[in-house]
Amino acid sequence: MLNTVKNNKSNLVKNLKKIVGDDNVLSSYEELYAYSTDSTNITNPDEIAQCIVFAENTQQVCEIIKYANEHSVAVVARAAGTNLCGACLPKAGGIIIDFAKMNKIIEINKDNLIAIVEPGVVIEDLQKEAELKDLYYPPDPSNLKVSMIGGSIGLSSGGPHTFKYGSTKDYVIGLEIVTAEGKIIHTGSVCSKDVTGYNLTQLFVGSEGTLGIITKAILRLIPKPEAKKVMLAYFDSLEDTSKTVNDIISNLITPSVIDLLDKNTLKTIESFYPSGLLVDKTAALLIEIDGFKSDLDNQYEKIIQICKNNNSSYIQTAKTTKEEEKIWIARRSSFGATAKLAPNVVTEDVVVPRENIVTLVKGIWDICKKYNLKTCIMGHIGDGNIHPNIALDLRNPDELNNFKNAKKELFELALSLNGRLSGEHGIGCEKSQFINNAIDPITLNYMKQMKQVFDPKNILNPGKIFI
Amino acid sequence: MLNTVKNNKSNLVKNLKKIVGDDNVLSSYEELYAYSTDSTNITNPDEIAQCIVFAENTQQVCEIIKYANEHSVAVVARAAGTNLCGACLPKAGGIIIDFAKMNKIIEINKDNLIAIVEPGVVIEDLQKEAELKDLYYPPDPSNLKVSMIGGSIGLSSGGPHTFKYGSTKDYVIGLEIVTAEGKIIHTGSVCSKDVTGYNLTQLFVGSEGTLGIITKAILRLIPKPEAKKVMLAYFDSLEDTSKTVNDIISNLITPSVIDLLDKNTLKTIESFYPSGLLVDKTAALLIEIDGFKSDLDNQYEKIIQICKNNNSSYIQTAKTTKEEEKIWIARRSSFGATAKLAPNVVTEDVVVPRENIVTLVKGIWDICKKYNLKTCIMGHIGDGNIHPNIALDLRNPDELNNFKNAKKELFELALSLNGRLSGEHGIGCEKSQFINNAIDPITLNYMKQMKQVFDPKNILNPGKIFI
Repeated sequence: MLNTVKNNKSNLVKNLKKIVGDDNVLSSYEELYAYSTDSTNITNPDEIAQCIVFAENTQQVCEIIKYANEHSVAVVARAAGTNLCGACLPKAGGIIIDFAKMNKIIEINKDNLIAIVEPGVVIEDLQKEAELKDLYYPPDPSNLKVSMIGGSIGLSSGGPHTFKYGSTKDYVIGLEIVTAEGKIIHTGSVCSKDVTGYNLTQLFVGSEGTLGIITKAILRLIPKPEAKKVMLAYFDSLEDTSKTVNDIISNLITPSVIDLLDKNTLKTIESFYPSGLLVDKTAALLIEIDGFKSDLDNQYEKIIQICKNNNSSYIQTAKTTKEEEKIWIARRSSFGATAKLAPNVVTEDVVVPRENIVTLVKGIWDICKKYNLKTCIMGHIGDGNIHPNIALDLRNPDELNNFKNAKKELFELALSLNGRLSGEHGIGCEKSQFINNAIDPITLNYMKQMKQVFDPKNILNPGKIFI
Repeated sequence: MLNTVKNNKSNLVKNLKKIVGDDNVLSSYEELYAYSTDSTNITNPDEIAQCIVFAENTQQVCEIIKYANEHSVAVVARAAGTNLCGACLPKAGGIIIDFAKMNKIIEINKDNLIAIVEPGVVIEDLQKEAELKDLYYPPDPSNLKVSMIGGSIGLSSGGPHTFKYGSTKDYVIGLEIVTAEGKIIHTGSVCSKDVTGYNLTQLFVGSEGTLGIITKAILRLIPKPEAKKVMLAYFDSLEDTSKTVNDIISNLITPSVIDLLDKNTLKTIESFYPSGLLVDKTAALLIEIDGFKSDLDNQYEKIIQICKNNNSSYIQTAKTTKEEEKIWIARRSSFGATAKLAPNVVTEDVVVPRENIVTLVKGIWDICKKYNLKTCIMGHIGDGNIHPNIALDLRNPDELNNFKNAKKELFELALSLNGRLSGEHGIGCEKSQFINNAIDPITLNYMKQMKQVFDPKNILNPGKIFI
């Protein structure tokens, strides 16, 4: 039983200050409230952290955890708090360790094709540093300008480039972890090929801070693509859109991005951030191809022909870097634009085998119509990974109720299509009530035993993934 | 304590025949001896299985394991037995489950880019079936004409194409596993992007049959490359060879293969399988590039220039498929050729960060000279993964002793260079005595706790990975 209530806050603050210094501890109610939320926009006034600590090095993290373990206080690791599943919410109060000050890129090694980083490194910063050496770190969640490596490993974030390049899990080859007992372990290594013992690294990736606290990561890098080309192809039916994706792959082309924007997304972006998008189409595909300069034209011409064969009514190709950026800014505005439709916007995340993508998208349209929810659908169609952005007023009990019902039906639909609860956002506390529908009890029981091994007192991010 | 000795063999055979039928059980001493070995060529007459069972379906595997668990009998899962680390040796006797009869390719789904297979599928058969649909399953251990998916997942096998495409672990997205209690669990899913719960899949990949028995696998496929080109570049120094690799990567090129053959390998292959290799060079790089036809010339010309800039004394380019095959046959003959030098050949497998590759290879030359061992070095230089093929007579106590000392020094060298015990062959019982040098005790203890959770009675492939 966690010590949330009886734990003496002033003692806690005093002892944590001894570890990290006065300047690295926050404890006023306003500060605690502000840090007890994340991008899910749900803060429960009964579930507020007792203390926010900024760790500056691994040793401090060890000491914080040792103290927490000894006193049975919950610990939530927080990077940028940009997650969308409540992964950073302190469900049992306790300590939030903020990693913003552990933000060093320790090494980018071109010969070994690796980066060694602290958890507070902003993803885009790593990408830019890598690029200076002609290297590439592909995982690119939409919020990469602020989101941090630690969080992206905790949730195994994806992004548009996952279709060709894989998600965060495919780039983490080693971790330094502080265990629930405050000890340091090292998983994996600096060698991308390594079968020395069990693969604990991937057990921690996507474990949402429930098994241990990441204090360092060894990431694989690849040579950066020489050139890219971006285009938007519009369609009047979802079937044509989906067939285009299949035909591109059948032509041996793996686009670096193949994203879907549905009719509502196109309209909503264009209403609030006019970008020259066509608003009378059923869907658009944002397609980016990359590779050697000498090859782009070949890929491009094939794709254009495939789009035309599948009745694409208009194809817009970026001819300059500026035009490319314009398309990307429009695409990345889908969340922000939807947010203008109502006081709140909730982004969901489901994934299905791609053969079921049309049924999924149409099903989501139907569900949202049934519950009268304004929904803009976009997603990574190549991966079968769809994000409905739902605009609503969470303070309105009817809307909230409708949303809850719609969400339940959304997950039922995805699971009925051989899909999963989450492709890249994680489970957190937002989807934990559905995990029993997605994973059979015997498998789930083994997962819980993993938790028991690594965190027997359940101090690490309690209340997440499992109910 | 396992029941190896007191277990009544005739009872065991009788009961297993009830499960799989008379024709699927072998129990004569000759048969047991033959199956109690693998490609490590080490058979210990005191460590012989009591029964070989050919499973035909998952249900039978469940029943076999339930029986074994109840009677505390060891169980070794065996695919083709081509591993090089003693992974299939029945160290505690018991039952060997052979998966040769569970060899169905259940599905190859182009829309979803996946294959669903049984563990007994031969890797090359899967590659060929995938190719019929213009798809590609890249992992290609050297013995892919006989080795099977089940074993390659158990050991997370790599192969020459790992540098560009990753190893087996990068293609396994879901597993059906029979647990040590004889129950079925399902890890992962048919969705390549899936963060629903802990990643148990990757805990099983590379766990050498010690955590559960794989009865089905969901594998990711990719569109196959349109074209490829193969060349051999010769060098007079290791430094030039290594710098060539770095320069190719600096030029944003990721070859699909970049393998090293050292002077002894070149000479030995040419002695026994004349292929037109040059035998007066220090090393050769086998380089394969792939991609779109339209792009190969661009990559090729850059590589040729880089090789010349690094003093490559001769470059041989395959101009026809036949010439390509000739180069590949020569390369794949390195093990067979070395085997002609002495009664036995042992292939080792170490990996280091690529910046240390020259020191590693020179160090191996020195060690083998010191112990008077005939050694041909080849390996996947792009990954820092090196295989010394050592020819010797294991019956000769002096040679055996020299080999043991050399092996110890080889691992010490690799670890001192920030490397690991194995890049793609696994630990098995051949390297388990060194695992304590490679993994710190706290991390190792967590690995042992994983074993404890999944196999509390230690019936699954006992005596492997850990000592």
